[in-house]
Amino acid sequence: MIIESVNNPKVKNWMKLKEKKYRDQEGLFLIEGDHLLKESLKANLVREIIAGDESFKVDNVPFYLVSEGVLKKLSSQVSSTKVIAVVEKIKTTKIVGDVCILDNIQDPGNLGAIIRSAVAFNISNLIMSADTVDLYNEKVIRASEGMIFKLNYQRGDLTQIIADLKKDGYQIWGTDVSKGVNLKEIQKEGNVAIIIGNEGQGMNPKYKDVCDKLINIKISHDCESLNASVAASIIFYQMME
Amino acid sequence: MIIESVNNPKVKNWMKLKEKKYRDQEGLFLIEGDHLLKESLKANLVREIIAGDESFKVDNVPFYLVSEGVLKKLSSQVSSTKVIAVVEKIKTTKIVGDVCILDNIQDPGNLGAIIRSAVAFNISNLIMSADTVDLYNEKVIRASEGMIFKLNYQRGDLTQIIADLKKDGYQIWGTDVSKGVNLKEIQKEGNVAIIIGNEGQGMNPKYKDVCDKLINIKISHDCESLNASVAASIIFYQMME
Repeated sequence: MIIESVNNPKVKNWMKLKEKKYRDQEGLFLIEGDHLLKESLKANLVREIIAGDESFKVDNVPFYLVSEGVLKKLSSQVSSTKVIAVVEKIKTTKIVGDVCILDNIQDPGNLGAIIRSAVAFNISNLIMSADTVDLYNEKVIRASEGMIFKLNYQRGDLTQIIADLKKDGYQIWGTDVSKGVNLKEIQKEGNVAIIIGNEGQGMNPKYKDVCDKLINIKISHDCESLNASVAASIIFYQMME
Repeated sequence: MIIESVNNPKVKNWMKLKEKKYRDQEGLFLIEGDHLLKESLKANLVREIIAGDESFKVDNVPFYLVSEGVLKKLSSQVSSTKVIAVVEKIKTTKIVGDVCILDNIQDPGNLGAIIRSAVAFNISNLIMSADTVDLYNEKVIRASEGMIFKLNYQRGDLTQIIADLKKDGYQIWGTDVSKGVNLKEIQKEGNVAIIIGNEGQGMNPKYKDVCDKLINIKISHDCESLNASVAASIIFYQMME
């Protein structure tokens, strides 16, 4: 049986997962493409596979054969997608290793790029303020290039989370464009949690007092600031042994 | 006189500049917003200013008062734009200082981010292969955060340009994920031209032989590659004294 109508109730339910409200309600989200399907299967989170041909069938996962029109309707990409999957949200586990804390990051491309760089440079945990863009936004997932399943995530009140990290012996690093210590001169010892601030405003000054170190990436006077994901990536790069 | 109709011939001509073909034909492009207007005025490239109120008037630059509807039509942004300008393309000057060479970069957000980071880390020149995304694409300009006027650009056949740079004493650096020397161990001496490859394929292997150094950013085995603008930015960061 092939699902051909975009008005099919199944399709309508899948479409709802494009909205954050329903993703939160159901604890599910959509992924697209072969690479992400493989990564989500490895993470054991795939609930349903939706594809235009049966080559994407996997043992013990419900499979739905759909028309090209349905796939196109479900897809968020310009180029044609061959497979889509309904995936469970990633489970939060205990924080082990270095942490990146995102304070009100708004651009989904930036969040995705930060995830990709975090995996590249062995930052294992990503903590997001409640007002940071949704992790399961399709643009975040795309920009993460399949790396989204490789981190541990937590979302909540940063003041509380930072206090808990400090209790656990974490060094809290913040960023400061004017007063910080040059990143190139910083030595990392023990576990670090680095706070990356909002694209426009930078790190919220209220976190300055809890920071063990304020760091600064030296840039030309011709340039006001770096892109948030670039700044985060450079710090991760420098932190990696 | 306020231009209220989106069918006004002036508006139609401005609209054409949203297409690469017309930008190339006219040697002009559009910028939006206060910040970019200031930067393009500093660069002495503004031909016409288009705004909804007269506060944006500038001596000796033709000014057009337009309705909100016209501004909205011309704008490429979701949030409302108060000013748009018709700007001359940036003139190419002699190459002085370090160079970044882009080999078939396709994503406008990446090109914009690379421009921003180049300015931040004192890379003065950007050379683009003919198949790299158009510099004057509105998404490039937006992602560059006003930095687009601060570099020297050249576009053309990379093989020829690289040969010329070598003659001028430039060290050519390429990137190689498998065999390269760890970026952290590299010392920069004299002028450098660093080649950044395409998002999917990396640097074209045909340039490997002309490279004086092949460099590699050490990343985790969990991650296949870095985002192209992140990789470029980390290299620029490391190159800056």
